[in-house]
This record gives sequence, C-alpha cells and structure tokens, in this order.
Amino acid sequence: MSSLLEQLIEALRVLPGVGQKSAQRMAYHVLEREREGGKRLAETLAESIERIGHCARCRDFAETEICPICASAARDAHQLCAVESPADRLAIEQATGYRGLYFVLQGRLSPLDGVGPNELGLDKLAARLAEGEVKELIIATNPTVEGEATAHYLAQLARKHGVRPSRLAHGVPLGGELEYVDRGTLSHAFGSRTEMPS
Amino acid sequence: MSSLLEQLIEALRVLPGVGQKSAQRMAYHVLEREREGGKRLAETLAESIERIGHCARCRDFAETEICPICASAARDAHQLCAVESPADRLAIEQATGYRGLYFVLQGRLSPLDGVGPNELGLDKLAARLAEGEVKELIIATNPTVEGEATAHYLAQLARKHGVRPSRLAHGVPLGGELEYVDRGTLSHAFGSRTEMPS
Repeated sequence: MSSLLEQLIEALRVLPGVGQKSAQRMAYHVLEREREGGKRLAETLAESIERIGHCARCRDFAETEICPICASAARDAHQLCAVESPADRLAIEQATGYRGLYFVLQGRLSPLDGVGPNELGLDKLAARLAEGEVKELIIATNPTVEGEATAHYLAQLARKHGVRPSRLAHGVPLGGELEYVDRGTLSHAFGSRTEMPS
Repeated sequence: MSSLLEQLIEALRVLPGVGQKSAQRMAYHVLEREREGGKRLAETLAESIERIGHCARCRDFAETEICPICASAARDAHQLCAVESPADRLAIEQATGYRGLYFVLQGRLSPLDGVGPNELGLDKLAARLAEGEVKELIIATNPTVEGEATAHYLAQLARKHGVRPSRLAHGVPLGGELEYVDRGTLSHAFGSRTEMPS
C-alpha cells in the first residue's frame, strides 16, 4: 500500500463514526469511482474550515459576522429559542413554522466535563435578555438529564430578567405505539394529559 | 444555515454509506471539534486524488508507476494472486504470509453491467502469464456467483499458458458454528472434507 493512501485512510478517521474499515472503504471508493466528487469535497472542506465561524449574536455557524437569521428583519425579535446545537436549530427550522430568533448553546451544562455557564455563552444570553426586547425564551434543550438541568438554569435566568420561559412539550411521539414508548415518557404524557376539545 | 455549510454537507455525500443525516453530523463535528483534522483531511484527499494512480504491473493503487510490492526483489515472481479489489489484496497481505505478487482485477466479470475481460485488464494478465515466469495463479476472487464465474475464466486462461491455477479453500469459517453456517457453505465443506492426520 502506498503511504499516501495510508495517510488518507488515517485522515478520514476524524469523521465521526468512521473506523479503520469504513475509512478504508471510503478511500478506495473515492479513488476508484468518485475522483471528481472527492476533489470537490477536499476544496469545500478546506474552504469551510477557513471561512465558517460563529455568529456573534446567536453562536450558530456562519460565514458572516452575523448569520442570515439574526440579520433578517422578517424574524420576530420577541421570541428567542435556546438549542444545544446547530443541528437542533436546523431541525426546528425545518420542522416548525417558528419565525423568532435562536440562541445556540453549543453544548449543555455538564460540570463533570468542565462545561459551565461560561462555555455555553450564558453571559451573552443574559446580556441579550437584559436588553428587554425578548419576551419569551423557548427552551429547546434535549430531554436528557443534562438537558433538563440546563433548561432549569435557563428558566431561572429568564425569570431574573423578566422574560417568560417556555419548554417544548414532552409526550408520546406522533405515530408511536404506547406499548413501545419508554416508561418515563409514558408517565410524563399521562400526567400532562390535556382535555380534548369537543 | 450558511450556504457553504450546505455545500459541505452535499460534498460529504460522495462518501459511501453517507446520507443526508450522517453528512450533516460529520460537517458539524468537524467544524465544532476537528478543524485541524479536517484541514489535514482536505489536504490529504486533494493530494491523493492528484497523485495516486494505478500500478502499471498489478493495477493496484500506487503513487509511483510500479507499486512497492511489484518493485520488490524480495517477492516470489513465480506466484501471482488475482484479487478483485485493492481491499482484498490488503486483506490477504495482512492475514497471510504470502510472499508472491498480485494482480488486481478492479472488479469481476459481469456481462450485464458491461464488465468483460477488457475492463478487468485480462489482456495484461494474459501477457504476463505468457512471459513464463509465473508458475501458479492463485485465484482469490470472492465466493459469489460473479466471483466464481471470474475464477473459472481465470483458471482457463492460466491453463492455456501452462500455468497451474489454484483457488482459496472454501468451508466452515474458523470459530463458526455449524448451526449458523449457510447451507451452501456447509454442503461444500461436507463434500470437500479431508482425512484427518493421525
């Protein structure tokens, strides 16, 4: 094997979920059948790493200092939605008709891993809430232990600045079967049952 | 989302087994946590695509005109092992103590897909066998229908040039349980049983 090929296989392993075998398969596939696509990938990747930074307002990825959503006059500045990651922001943007703004924490509170309020830019968020324009902080952290802890922290922060905190509803997912829903979710959904409209 | 990020996600999909969701995860992961590694990947990928071609003798990937194995004086030129892909060659090289040379078909006979003897470089293989140095052609194509057809074709080619063809043994894999071995393999292993040494 050529040593450049070995280097390529090694380099591919920075991608998440890619081990030795997959990296090998990827390298062979690109060299055998996708040289054009591989070239484009190399160029786009280099350019992305050089040019994509973080939005100064919402901390999401952005090519410009302020991302297009934060810069848009069409978005409602009274609503701010806090998410853990850019992927979560994208999921909400694609699935819902939400027209407010976002704040991307880039993580969740996790003291054991050294992730505290500073790492999540909560000083920035506090300053933003203090400005007075935001009326509702929609907390969309993940329903994990750490996500819930983060949500409680954010709710306190919001209340301190006179902002109404809200949380995504938990419950049985659409299309889910009760039999296969985990106990915690089912118990929560049962407790949070709502009256049916007639 | 920045459009450069969308381009990156799209570009990552040339990798085998990578769909929209994985590409997204990979892009976010590299931008969040692996900028150095991503930069190295972009460079190595670009350099590999530019510099890695095929060995003029064995058709394996090579940075030079003749790959290190074909160029090595330490390898036994009397034995030639035909494999379908560079990955197969690598697997044999890593698992066995084989010291002969290789011929990489870069595919298998598949008339329906337009893959005939020319696409597999069999004219080159025939010329090589005609040189007279090769005494044994070890046929290590995959035990699939097309791999078997290719093996038969190669065996005929070998005999025509007075070269002895051999085939990897088929049978129950080491550590396999008879109960879970597929019928074809079991039947073959039963029929090819060998006497036990006392």
